[in-house]
Amino acid sequence: MRIDDRQHDQLRKVQVENNYLIHPEGSVLISVGDTKVICTASVEERVPPFLRGQGKGWITAEYAMLPRATQQRNIRESSKGKVTGRTMEIQRLIGRALRSVIDLDSIGERTIWVDCDVIQADGGTRTASITGAFIAVVHAVGQLYEAKKIKSFPIKDYLAATSVGILSESGPMLDLCYIEDSQADVDMNVVMTGSGEYVELQGTGEEATFSAGQLNEMLSLASKGILELIEIQKETIGILAEKIGNE
Amino acid sequence: MRIDDRQHDQLRKVQVENNYLIHPEGSVLISVGDTKVICTASVEERVPPFLRGQGKGWITAEYAMLPRATQQRNIRESSKGKVTGRTMEIQRLIGRALRSVIDLDSIGERTIWVDCDVIQADGGTRTASITGAFIAVVHAVGQLYEAKKIKSFPIKDYLAATSVGILSESGPMLDLCYIEDSQADVDMNVVMTGSGEYVELQGTGEEATFSAGQLNEMLSLASKGILELIEIQKETIGILAEKIGNE
Amino acid sequence: MRIDDRQHDQLRKVQVENNYLIHPEGSVLISVGDTKVICTASVEERVPPFLRGQGKGWITAEYAMLPRATQQRNIRESSKGKVTGRTMEIQRLIGRALRSVIDLDSIGERTIWVDCDVIQADGGTRTASITGAFIAVVHAVGQLYEAKKIKSFPIKDYLAATSVGILSESGPMLDLCYIEDSQADVDMNVVMTGSGEYVELQGTGEEATFSAGQLNEMLSLASKGILELIEIQKETIGILAEKIGNE
Amino acid sequence: MRIDDRQHDQLRKVQVENNYLIHPEGSVLISVGDTKVICTASVEERVPPFLRGQGKGWITAEYAMLPRATQQRNIRESSKGKVTGRTMEIQRLIGRALRSVIDLDSIGERTIWVDCDVIQADGGTRTASITGAFIAVVHAVGQLYEAKKIKSFPIKDYLAATSVGILSESGPMLDLCYIEDSQADVDMNVVMTGSGEYVELQGTGEEATFSAGQLNEMLSLASKGILELIEIQKETIGILAEKIGNE
Amino acid sequence: MRIDDRQHDQLRKVQVENNYLIHPEGSVLISVGDTKVICTASVEERVPPFLRGQGKGWITAEYAMLPRATQQRNIRESSKGKVTGRTMEIQRLIGRALRSVIDLDSIGERTIWVDCDVIQADGGTRTASITGAFIAVVHAVGQLYEAKKIKSFPIKDYLAATSVGILSESGPMLDLCYIEDSQADVDMNVVMTGSGEYVELQGTGEEATFSAGQLNEMLSLASKGILELIEIQKETIGILAEKIGNE
Amino acid sequence: MRIDDRQHDQLRKVQVENNYLIHPEGSVLISVGDTKVICTASVEERVPPFLRGQGKGWITAEYAMLPRATQQRNIRESSKGKVTGRTMEIQRLIGRALRSVIDLDSIGERTIWVDCDVIQADGGTRTASITGAFIAVVHAVGQLYEAKKIKSFPIKDYLAATSVGILSESGPMLDLCYIEDSQADVDMNVVMTGSGEYVELQGTGEEATFSAGQLNEMLSLASKGILELIEIQKETIGILAEKIGNE
Repeated sequence: MRIDDRQHDQLRKVQVENNYLIHPEGSVLISVGDTKVICTASVEERVPPFLRGQGKGWITAEYAMLPRATQQRNIRESSKGKVTGRTMEIQRLIGRALRSVIDLDSIGERTIWVDCDVIQADGGTRTASITGAFIAVVHAVGQLYEAKKIKSFPIKDYLAATSVGILSESGPMLDLCYIEDSQADVDMNVVMTGSGEYVELQGTGEEATFSAGQLNEMLSLASKGILELIEIQKETIGILAEKIGNE
Repeated sequence: MRIDDRQHDQLRKVQVENNYLIHPEGSVLISVGDTKVICTASVEERVPPFLRGQGKGWITAEYAMLPRATQQRNIRESSKGKVTGRTMEIQRLIGRALRSVIDLDSIGERTIWVDCDVIQADGGTRTASITGAFIAVVHAVGQLYEAKKIKSFPIKDYLAATSVGILSESGPMLDLCYIEDSQADVDMNVVMTGSGEYVELQGTGEEATFSAGQLNEMLSLASKGILELIEIQKETIGILAEKIGNE
Repeated sequence: MRIDDRQHDQLRKVQVENNYLIHPEGSVLISVGDTKVICTASVEERVPPFLRGQGKGWITAEYAMLPRATQQRNIRESSKGKVTGRTMEIQRLIGRALRSVIDLDSIGERTIWVDCDVIQADGGTRTASITGAFIAVVHAVGQLYEAKKIKSFPIKDYLAATSVGILSESGPMLDLCYIEDSQADVDMNVVMTGSGEYVELQGTGEEATFSAGQLNEMLSLASKGILELIEIQKETIGILAEKIGNE
Repeated sequence: MRIDDRQHDQLRKVQVENNYLIHPEGSVLISVGDTKVICTASVEERVPPFLRGQGKGWITAEYAMLPRATQQRNIRESSKGKVTGRTMEIQRLIGRALRSVIDLDSIGERTIWVDCDVIQADGGTRTASITGAFIAVVHAVGQLYEAKKIKSFPIKDYLAATSVGILSESGPMLDLCYIEDSQADVDMNVVMTGSGEYVELQGTGEEATFSAGQLNEMLSLASKGILELIEIQKETIGILAEKIGNE
Repeated sequence: MRIDDRQHDQLRKVQVENNYLIHPEGSVLISVGDTKVICTASVEERVPPFLRGQGKGWITAEYAMLPRATQQRNIRESSKGKVTGRTMEIQRLIGRALRSVIDLDSIGERTIWVDCDVIQADGGTRTASITGAFIAVVHAVGQLYEAKKIKSFPIKDYLAATSVGILSESGPMLDLCYIEDSQADVDMNVVMTGSGEYVELQGTGEEATFSAGQLNEMLSLASKGILELIEIQKETIGILAEKIGNE
Repeated sequence: MRIDDRQHDQLRKVQVENNYLIHPEGSVLISVGDTKVICTASVEERVPPFLRGQGKGWITAEYAMLPRATQQRNIRESSKGKVTGRTMEIQRLIGRALRSVIDLDSIGERTIWVDCDVIQADGGTRTASITGAFIAVVHAVGQLYEAKKIKSFPIKDYLAATSVGILSESGPMLDLCYIEDSQADVDMNVVMTGSGEYVELQGTGEEATFSAGQLNEMLSLASKGILELIEIQKETIGILAEKIGNE
């Protein structure tokens, strides 16, 4: 049994509070166990210079943690005067993943800014960010669609993410919490679509390696978890769910 | 009547969620109308270099807004690579105000880091931050006290803050929301103690000035509001309230 | 008696050297006791992006100290690579104060850059900067007026500033020098117009508080001092003085 | 056939110039087709603060491109004043990969700084960096070993990397050059050991996704390529090769 | 005799590898003894803002060292977040020197970016950079000329540079290597044209001074060395050599 | 005749105000024509890390301009967040020049910080800075000597600097003002000692070159001017003058 009494293939409890903030076009507070992330989607009526005049849109993401989201207080990146390598890796991942299921041609010359701010961290903040950000983007895009600013619904498929890992004593596990993550030999983040295709695989064995067999076990746990996350997304999204992948 | 149907001397609805996060020694989510701020207090077992070896403590504060706390998305200060002048003014104010009611000698060689992160903004974010941060600090200091790491309870008095202002058509008003604030001729932030003493007065008439009479009207509104805020603090703090100012 | 033999309501000796530099449109060297500030006003024939096309002007201020203006050498902000919070607070204050007595519509699409560079510091550098900068701006605006680049004289009133404070042993005092300032319990900067209206009030009790009675005593000292400073401004400005507030 | 007449499972021509520079403890110039990287390994007789006093060592990597390594000149990161997200991702990857095959306990309180400077880029710069950096580290560690500064040879296994990808018209391919990389739907970087274990998998489908079947095809191409790269490493390393994995 | 057995008026061995890289319009790898610099010239079809619309071009240079070009590893300037004073001095010198022999009017509204990246350092890196950069610029300008993008050949004269110095025990010397340079009392960099005119003289006696007589001895050594360097440039440049100074 | 009616070998009017500021150990306001520089020397009782424990001292210099020292307002380097290449070149030159005439062993483990702040610029600011900084350093060192903190007077010789240049129509000239400097084909800064030895020579022909004959004419003008500047230094320094070079 795991530290929090879960089965090795069991997700933590997932909760999504829709429209969590009044200003953004889309926003959720997603909780995956004790990990809590505010995900917002903001629509800006222009695109970055490299896309101007092409009639297509852009999605970009930023990620941050409150200083005391963690056990030990972190120094703010604004105080450091720069964004760390870890933050950059995560925000590039989130943006890239979202762009794989959204038809940028259909959103017109607009940028969707996704902000994932972790207010409490207990492992899996980047995958919770992707799962929550997808819903926030659906809300924001839904507003554009209802206001008839865009003609077709540009979300081609669902998108969710989770972590899997291998602990030397307990074997492969789904959805690692912080303590599990810090003890894992291998850690893999998987991003998948509703139709079961891979979008991103990032497997790392720091001071350890993994075999082809272990890779397959981890991928199979990840599939199971992501399909469950997508069921939760469907319920949360409500009526817009039927538009996804249908236009 | 005001835009949100309040009387000119009426605060917005104030709510405080105690122990909002699991990691910090003290934390609250304070709402003043639609303004929402996560205030945390973190205890670090050392002081900045200029205080080392003197046996006394330090309190410092940081303030930030989520990018989409506001109507228009703000660029993150970490992306800009620097903290703006407005942010620096506010965090210096919060730290200075808290230090006026806390006996730094009694907390030993510790730093209390206060973080005020605005997740939704509708005017008065700096004063809500002070009012909420005071409670978070009481929780954090209470932990030290209960663990017998400090001998006497170092909080000398209550501390709360509000804004007052003058709108050319409607006269002086208490606790401005964003729309009122953006139309005000004069804007004043007042920080006071439970015994009614001033800690900070910051009155500004950008492109306008104010007379001694108007100053007095604003100060009197501020006093009324701050005493009400301190009543709310007392209820929130619970049993620790009786320690404040009594050691 | 005070450390420099002044009465509690007595300003230090104030001297203004007009047109101190050859290049700027307006410049003075102001001395308030041993505090010496070079204040310049530079006219730029364009406005910041947020004002373009509106036919109105802008005034902005920057403040700095030479490294050895002070007892201990300060590290240059250019070497640090950033402007400190204290500097930002002061330059925002100077700009805001000047904008309150100048009709920005009358100066056309121009920016007036005010630079206050402290070459020697003995307390009260920010208030000496405001008092001196006002004169430099009058000179610069006078040039525009004489060259008929602007139609009406845009200075609506005089503007000067001083500090007041409370020392625990000696009570309230006007125009603190550095030693007094470092011993004061309460420190207040007051900016006023020639007609006696407040423009800015910034009262701070770090590790101390102040009562309504003490506030009134300080405000009354400040009024006396500022009116004396404005008399000195009038003499310095000469013939242009009659234009102020008359158009 | 591919743009440069290779088979889909064929590496580009790989050349390694050993001891390319006179100053570093280890250095190579590695060419993989037209991609050329100078890889150096520098030994510093101390570790970062978080490791001091633990008797173990550290390996860290930095990566950069000359401004004109690419078709279009890039702005230097030193001129920008910051390191980009892409660079940070790559240097974190290189360091992490090397640490997986080196016994940090055996190198003592030393840091091995790995520098990978791309002087010419034609795709696959990060994987060429890893393959070359491994050899440079072996040289540097060999010096320590021969000087008897370390007791056992700390390299546990070989390490090499390559890229694989899927082009919509041509299917899966090994070792993409720049043109292939820019047309690929899916791009995956694989880092493996001499014993065929995975160290890192980074698969990305920007604006595309990939199935489990495609993943397997890519992994199998990667294995073939990496084993060939490791043969080249063995030849290059010479006599030290027999020490790897044998202590 | 000198440390490397040279005569006091003898250059180190100079080698130039033409067209060293595939992407830049001009590139060389120049070796002066153990000092090795990759010099590239990149043509950009626009000029900096201060020159736009004037029909003339610009040449600018950047200089950097690989971290392990030197005996001790240097921290990258991109990691420091800023360019050092030494680097700025050198890149300003290289750009200024090149502009003295190139007719900026003849190259049209183009910028030639010169990049000098030291891959191995043994003294004289700035003068080797100038000597090599001149050749790279000739190649790049030759391409423009052959493509008939410019009408006349804009190189007015040859340009090369060397260092001279005085060692207290051995007297004046030509082309100092690193050990000589670190022991020299006086160090002078001289940039000259093919017709023997001075372009730059930078003589420095840190903790020492030099007389008029010593100055003359150093200038005469420098002349001799630079004329030899220009002969090497002529051979390297080949057919384009006859265009220099003839249009 | 020159623009300001000087002979080609005539310096501008030089004035030195001794002990210009109350806080620094040494300070002057030097005027060379309309160029005015505040030069201060500050004594710090420690040395930079690379010199600790060696019993010798250090001299370092910083240089800056007030934003409106010039015809057009300059952006502050603190606002830009970095020091420009020009500033770095100048402050390195000033420090290096001063170190050549001061015996660092005799000042003990102290740093002398020299600050040259240009309050008005009309050409020759770097050479005026050196000439003025020398006097400020003599004052600061004199204080140490009188307080018997150092045993022997560490100034070995006088040090002054001037500029010379060649204007195409008027030939070689001494001490260029801004207009002359901006029209000059060749510009040379010369730093010399009281005994007529060179300390620094920096000759530059941007978009022009100069012959050996022109070099000699310029050097001879520079010698004449520097000897006159040293006479002015002697008068200013007063009684301490007899110590220079005599211990």
